[in-house]
Amino acid sequence: MKLFHTADWHLGKLVQGVYMTEDQRYVLEQFVQAIEQEKPDAVIIAGDLYDRAVPPTDAVHLLDEVMETIVMKLKTPVLAVAGNHDSPSRLNFGSRIMKKNGFHIVGNLTKDLEPVVLHDEHGEVHFHLIPYCDPSIVRTVFEDDVVRTHNDAARKIVEEIRSKMDPNSRHVFVGHAFVTPFGEEEENTSDSERPLSIGGAEYVDAHHFSPFHYTALGHLHQAHHVLDETIRYSGSILKYSISEENHKKGYHIVEMDAAGEVSLEKKLLAPRRDIRTVETTLEDLLNQPINEDYVFVRLLDEAPVLSPMEKVRSVYPNAMHVERKNHSLSPMSNESGKTVNRSKMSDLELFKAFYKEVKGEEVTEETEGIFKEVLDELLKEENETGKISRKREYIRN
Amino acid sequence: MKLFHTADWHLGKLVQGVYMTEDQRYVLEQFVQAIEQEKPDAVIIAGDLYDRAVPPTDAVHLLDEVMETIVMKLKTPVLAVAGNHDSPSRLNFGSRIMKKNGFHIVGNLTKDLEPVVLHDEHGEVHFHLIPYCDPSIVRTVFEDDVVRTHNDAARKIVEEIRSKMDPNSRHVFVGHAFVTPFGEEEENTSDSERPLSIGGAEYVDAHHFSPFHYTALGHLHQAHHVLDETIRYSGSILKYSISEENHKKGYHIVEMDAAGEVSLEKKLLAPRRDIRTVETTLEDLLNQPINEDYVFVRLLDEAPVLSPMEKVRSVYPNAMHVERKNHSLSPMSNESGKTVNRSKMSDLELFKAFYKEVKGEEVTEETEGIFKEVLDELLKEENETGKISRKREYIRN
Repeated sequence: MKLFHTADWHLGKLVQGVYMTEDQRYVLEQFVQAIEQEKPDAVIIAGDLYDRAVPPTDAVHLLDEVMETIVMKLKTPVLAVAGNHDSPSRLNFGSRIMKKNGFHIVGNLTKDLEPVVLHDEHGEVHFHLIPYCDPSIVRTVFEDDVVRTHNDAARKIVEEIRSKMDPNSRHVFVGHAFVTPFGEEEENTSDSERPLSIGGAEYVDAHHFSPFHYTALGHLHQAHHVLDETIRYSGSILKYSISEENHKKGYHIVEMDAAGEVSLEKKLLAPRRDIRTVETTLEDLLNQPINEDYVFVRLLDEAPVLSPMEKVRSVYPNAMHVERKNHSLSPMSNESGKTVNRSKMSDLELFKAFYKEVKGEEVTEETEGIFKEVLDELLKEENETGKISRKREYIRN
Repeated sequence: MKLFHTADWHLGKLVQGVYMTEDQRYVLEQFVQAIEQEKPDAVIIAGDLYDRAVPPTDAVHLLDEVMETIVMKLKTPVLAVAGNHDSPSRLNFGSRIMKKNGFHIVGNLTKDLEPVVLHDEHGEVHFHLIPYCDPSIVRTVFEDDVVRTHNDAARKIVEEIRSKMDPNSRHVFVGHAFVTPFGEEEENTSDSERPLSIGGAEYVDAHHFSPFHYTALGHLHQAHHVLDETIRYSGSILKYSISEENHKKGYHIVEMDAAGEVSLEKKLLAPRRDIRTVETTLEDLLNQPINEDYVFVRLLDEAPVLSPMEKVRSVYPNAMHVERKNHSLSPMSNESGKTVNRSKMSDLELFKAFYKEVKGEEVTEETEGIFKEVLDELLKEENETGKISRKREYIRN
């Protein structure tokens, strides 16, 4: 049996205020094309189809289109679960009607845990679709007060599945959780993965998944396996944060043999626009060819740059962020060329440094004289009335 | 062919801050039961399935449950369109997948206008499902600049349908619009029908629908026919405003014969709690038996009532609104028993009337003396400083 394993589509996602919908459409077209060519027996989407409970209608439309193509046109069953970003009930709508046509989507956890059964020439494969859910839901659904953490919840769910598992079939677990080799370790968290819960109770021990021939996971955006080659994250279809800059995004093709042994191939998806860091001086940057990527620019210039985004966007029109290297801590040169922390510079030194930054030349004696005059006047007023401390603050900062 | 015609479910509706979900479930259970008994060939829902574009998850869950029962358990096709309260794209999700199982729902207008075709022993019946849409959408979809109003839009759509209509079949139009006998008249608007657009361009002339054997409409909450017996509103399933107090809510059973002639039966749905007005004095009200209806109480008492809602709810725990008859214009008695407009009463008269209202007895001379003293003092201060005009205003009003 051949399976496509993907997850974390996050349709409707905004990155730095930019909707990713067109970028998502771009890679999903490649994904659909691959389904057409490879003809897998099923497509697994392990949660976070949408980026939020109420996605924008464009995102709804895109998912509708993609699902319709996969299920109706390509006749390929889809096995999907809700992630922590999805609304269980909204995703669940129509699920029992669509099931008949091969679109199996589970938004809400239910007690029956009925697997979806698909067949190949070797027999049945049982897919256990477990949506992301808070431990309190597992506690309620199975009336088990012991369930407090996500790890407890996973243990409970797998116990329930095992209690009625057909030992002669092959089994695939589809889930959305923070699975680690030990269940308590923090790792692989990137900025765009919203924490499952507060307080460190979100980790799930990978050992729970040993009864399954393959465990298709979603939630962590980097493709990797946990503990065992058969317990895997496919990763997200796109980089959704600069912290994912070095990830290789794509999906897995999983081949399962008669004995349930899996072999795996990672396929890459080419993004419409990459998300990456550009570290350079402005001068060098302006000599680069125009590029549409979503770049995060770190300018190495010592001197300040006026309207940096405007300049950067003449080369990188979709630049998402510009910063100066270590800008927040950046020391400035004082008269003697030594770098000094700003807060330790005198008012006059600060003014001279500021003047040089803005005008690009040293203060003339005349200007220095005018500044001193104004400053003295202000300080005198301050001592007399105590009323201009705000202005003084302004000058100092 | 036997059809159930319903519309305007408005799942997720709040009436005076109260969610109607349980009331909706209550009547929908009767509706589903009737489908089980009557075994119609199809159920038409002519728009406004939800009350808003993003309904609460309870409402999504309720619609999901009802649709699943009708389509999957009772094997009865559903023919539904989006109304002006629905989100076209959200309602459209999965529609082409669910179509295969007999759940035909059209959220977005598309150019093809492919009818849904059902069969009975006499042949085909074509259902033309036209969602509510702004004239601008019709203008764009059909690239016809002439379309400016809803009436233009309906004319255009019907023209398009007619151009490829099978003359040997029977035809049913399912739509959501403000249809009147002339296309410009304002009628039957109740508070809970949000106007389709501003400026009087929302009316659709019923004459457009003459090519159809039956026109199943939604939008107006009162069941009625327009121009012809075959052009009909089913009305909403519940009263959604006190302005609908005298409506009889239910649905239509439409029987269509071989020639496309229809006969019609109106069926009522019994609400869990009625919405109605109670007009009585508080004393009489407090002697009535406890009743769970959503009442709007108009108290006939001349004297003011302290904490009226609290008292009313001891008998009508679900009372939605309490007012005194003509309260805003209510005259008050002055000393001589003559009724006088408050704004013409002197400060002293106002105080005495207020005192009597609150204490139920006349002001004693001593109290009157204290009031005069305080008032004089305030007025003196006002003349001196002009600063207490706000206090003075407060006393006057």
